[in-house]
Amino acid sequence: MPLPRAVVLLSGGLDSATTLAIARAEGFETHAISFRYGQRHAVELEFALRVARALGAARHVIAEIDLRVFGGSALTADLAVPKHARAEEIGGGIPVTYVPARNTIFLSFALAFAETTGANDIYIGVNALDYSGYPDCRPEYLEAFERMAKLATRAGVEGPGVSLHAPLLRMGKAEIIRRGLELGVDFSLTRSCYDPTLDGASCGHCDSCLLRRRGFAQAGIPDPIPYAPR
Amino acid sequence: MPLPRAVVLLSGGLDSATTLAIARAEGFETHAISFRYGQRHAVELEFALRVARALGAARHVIAEIDLRVFGGSALTADLAVPKHARAEEIGGGIPVTYVPARNTIFLSFALAFAETTGANDIYIGVNALDYSGYPDCRPEYLEAFERMAKLATRAGVEGPGVSLHAPLLRMGKAEIIRRGLELGVDFSLTRSCYDPTLDGASCGHCDSCLLRRRGFAQAGIPDPIPYAPR
Repeated sequence: MPLPRAVVLLSGGLDSATTLAIARAEGFETHAISFRYGQRHAVELEFALRVARALGAARHVIAEIDLRVFGGSALTADLAVPKHARAEEIGGGIPVTYVPARNTIFLSFALAFAETTGANDIYIGVNALDYSGYPDCRPEYLEAFERMAKLATRAGVEGPGVSLHAPLLRMGKAEIIRRGLELGVDFSLTRSCYDPTLDGASCGHCDSCLLRRRGFAQAGIPDPIPYAPR
Repeated sequence: MPLPRAVVLLSGGLDSATTLAIARAEGFETHAISFRYGQRHAVELEFALRVARALGAARHVIAEIDLRVFGGSALTADLAVPKHARAEEIGGGIPVTYVPARNTIFLSFALAFAETTGANDIYIGVNALDYSGYPDCRPEYLEAFERMAKLATRAGVEGPGVSLHAPLLRMGKAEIIRRGLELGVDFSLTRSCYDPTLDGASCGHCDSCLLRRRGFAQAGIPDPIPYAPR
């Protein structure tokens, strides 16, 4: 019998790589989707391709969307990405790196992909502990998205509709890293940086780098990727 | 005092044109958004531009998204658009012109646009009576989207969040046409056809044309646009 299919949002970062490995371990044929959305860290897409291949995704599509038409985020516009010395310095509130409605747009595309590919399951690697202040990483948001998604498509008219899985939701970064290693994720293929150098090194001091580095430190495992000297 | 802003989904068809006129009549400065999504009837975008101008939209953005990456709809792929002689022949169930998760994707972009432009209101011209079998035109779907949207963005963290308006939801096509005329909509600038000819005439026999023509007939008003001879 063929495996059931799941769509997995894949950014090239360590969270989504671990999520892809979890979807596979939970018995799904995985169909990965990544986005070219005008992000300044588009190098992550090359890593997404390598991660999808390494983890045996049956298919990997890259959807082109242009969020720059709206402006409004340091990840897509010409605002400076904030830098800190340590993860503990990351401030409260919603950071300027928040991209308006990004997860909603990404999940909407995942829903379209799920519908056309016959998948009833969507995996997303958000987590609520290290979520860095984004409103669209909260559990109540994900529940509301799933409820909407069940009403949005054919699958929800003719059957139970799609289910949304966020297996990392309540995991800390160190726990995610350990779980990924158990499942065979090669973290040297992942990148998390919001502001990499031209030769692909991670900056080491944006929120995303700081959370990653603290996670590896807490897990007692060396981070295998290159960081730019400060 | 400046008017509050509303984002309005604008396709170039008569429903969204009337919706734009309603948003303006309800006291909003309107910010229209249209989509180039690989539709075979992309000529509708030219009409969207004219409608936005004629109805005094403060801004009009066209977002590029590529739903063809997924395939799966007669509106974006190489399936034949179904034709009928009369509106009464339109079958039950979900038609092949259904685009997977289309309204979810469009509304997600509208949500991003609303967030960056400071709008707390989104208008969409769906209606449940003539809805032609699309799951994402049902009232329960729209309610679930609004609930999700209120949790998705800064506006929903810092205030009440966005409201979704579907003023045509329970109106028949004839009623929509009469309301549009009252509000000054020039329906000669609108197009509804899923399968127009190369010179821009509407086919007259796709579901969308049939519903439009029946609406004008029921309203007792001549439809001012050209139709191809059959």
